[in-house]
Amino acid sequence: MKIKVIIVDQDTNYTSHMLQVFQTRYADKVEMRVFSDVNSFYANIREAYADLVLYSSNLQLDTAELPESVVIGCLCEQSGIEEIGGVSAICKYQKVDILYKLMLGLFAEKASDMKLKTSGNLVHVTLFTSVQGGCGTSAAAAAYALRMAKEGKKIFYLNLQKFGSSNLYFTGEGTMSFSDVIYALKSRKSNLLIKIESTLKTDPSGVDFFSDCRNAFDMIELKDDEIVSLIQAIGQVGEYEEIVVDLSGDLTERQLKLMQDYADSVIYICDGTMTGIRKFEKFCETIRVIEERKEVQIMNKIQLLYNRYSSKNSMQMEKLPVSLLGGIHRFENVSGRPLIDQIAKMDILRQVR
Amino acid sequence: MKIKVIIVDQDTNYTSHMLQVFQTRYADKVEMRVFSDVNSFYANIREAYADLVLYSSNLQLDTAELPESVVIGCLCEQSGIEEIGGVSAICKYQKVDILYKLMLGLFAEKASDMKLKTSGNLVHVTLFTSVQGGCGTSAAAAAYALRMAKEGKKIFYLNLQKFGSSNLYFTGEGTMSFSDVIYALKSRKSNLLIKIESTLKTDPSGVDFFSDCRNAFDMIELKDDEIVSLIQAIGQVGEYEEIVVDLSGDLTERQLKLMQDYADSVIYICDGTMTGIRKFEKFCETIRVIEERKEVQIMNKIQLLYNRYSSKNSMQMEKLPVSLLGGIHRFENVSGRPLIDQIAKMDILRQVR
Repeated sequence: MKIKVIIVDQDTNYTSHMLQVFQTRYADKVEMRVFSDVNSFYANIREAYADLVLYSSNLQLDTAELPESVVIGCLCEQSGIEEIGGVSAICKYQKVDILYKLMLGLFAEKASDMKLKTSGNLVHVTLFTSVQGGCGTSAAAAAYALRMAKEGKKIFYLNLQKFGSSNLYFTGEGTMSFSDVIYALKSRKSNLLIKIESTLKTDPSGVDFFSDCRNAFDMIELKDDEIVSLIQAIGQVGEYEEIVVDLSGDLTERQLKLMQDYADSVIYICDGTMTGIRKFEKFCETIRVIEERKEVQIMNKIQLLYNRYSSKNSMQMEKLPVSLLGGIHRFENVSGRPLIDQIAKMDILRQVR
Repeated sequence: MKIKVIIVDQDTNYTSHMLQVFQTRYADKVEMRVFSDVNSFYANIREAYADLVLYSSNLQLDTAELPESVVIGCLCEQSGIEEIGGVSAICKYQKVDILYKLMLGLFAEKASDMKLKTSGNLVHVTLFTSVQGGCGTSAAAAAYALRMAKEGKKIFYLNLQKFGSSNLYFTGEGTMSFSDVIYALKSRKSNLLIKIESTLKTDPSGVDFFSDCRNAFDMIELKDDEIVSLIQAIGQVGEYEEIVVDLSGDLTERQLKLMQDYADSVIYICDGTMTGIRKFEKFCETIRVIEERKEVQIMNKIQLLYNRYSSKNSMQMEKLPVSLLGGIHRFENVSGRPLIDQIAKMDILRQVR
């Protein structure tokens, strides 16, 4: 997808700089034209078939002259301004990748033509899950995403834990967050695919992710069917080879649905303590009943990964009802990115199938 | 509630023994009559207004002679027999408290006259919860129940964790489990109150509880509205002063509903690690939005309890949005009952309001 952007600004230093950097860095994403004169802009706008028009806040634009399909935005010199006279505002002076994302975001709010393909998801989805809490499922998932990115794969890391955090592990440029994607999922007015593209951040390792919601409550608003649309949409946005999803819980409907219908691989995390093993056994017992009643296959997707394994308190199960991926020992006094940097070094992560 | 039981058996040693022990131990629960002669039984049954008739498997009983409202069961000499000629069987030779519960269970299957009062729940409900996993919420809840029982309170401990275990902490006589209560909740044919009374076990400490489900899947079948009926019914069964409910999770609908509508006190468990504190903060942020949108009050019910607190990895929050109950340090290399015996000694548990 390539969007056509027109910039109207008398500041020719600015417009020629913009032209140059967008041609260098976003030639395949943005087709940009610039006008320093308003009348010449009016004369050309009908034939330009622009998607987005950004005009300097120093100019008065007669929006009645513009085709209805065009999205408009205002370029202003101060940061922190959201709207000028009912038109969304963007600060002119920002890093080009942020400007690009803000443009996409603006466009996504209004455009709703691009449709989500509802056909099967072709991207490989790997779910990290557990019914045991505190055994480091999120860290294992993030470490796996990191390792795969380092192996050259194009990876999206999707943390669906309501009280989880992607920011704990990954950093990237951008001002938008998962909250914006959740709004887009709920509002048919904005285009989901463009919204995702404009919201996602890229970690220096290459892992793409969404920044944490601005307010934790937004995660509560995310419904089961929206998660399905979300995963399908991510699969269509970035030519990803793999989406790594992180969702633990008490075997909720959502967890079950992901395991059953959307995950190609399921990595179950257990810390090998008595409690952890007992929960895993009950989990398997439950899944077996579900497989029988619903005539679905889940167990054969599951690989067990011991994590936070301690030689003192942990042990391995003797008879395993699923295949064993391996074990990651407990790392003391380290968390966040330094922790997953350590875990990502472990070669067993390459055994995920 | 007192049930009228008739035993028909030619073995007078057995029947007189039964009469004696039931009069000694269950005078307020069971009114028992015994017949050694079948004809004399037939002559008296209409005027006896019996709820339950148990007859020896050596006798042939003509069930057409019995009033329709009477529940019948067969007393046999071997254990492990479930039915004889379509009639539920009970082994004669068992401890009296188990016999009593089996009788109640038999009666509950058929009787469905007793209605659940739908009026407000007068028993105090204390919910132990967390959105953080692995911080010992179940152990804290069980320890609190144990301590309150030791203080002389009549307590029911209700573990609603799908993969949790009450048996880890409490033991009691009986053959039935939470599975039986879940079936009763789903089937209108059996009487819930009697089913609960016949299923519950009593720990030597005095804490009442349900034994773990026979199959973990049964917990998945338990629906949100059934939990409401369950808590109301428990409140009506045992003259409890307090029901201690244990339910953690990703702030599910169920968790929220319990906090909002059914819990009088909410004890939030946090281990004081960075991750734990961040999750608690996000939890509070979310609850505040919910309070505003739904115009409900939750925060003022919550007390924070640090558990598994380690001087090395844990810290206390500076500004607390809820009141602080206190802290329980981490006990190394101990779990199950020995663990909660330790925790129950801590006097801060008396500060729960």
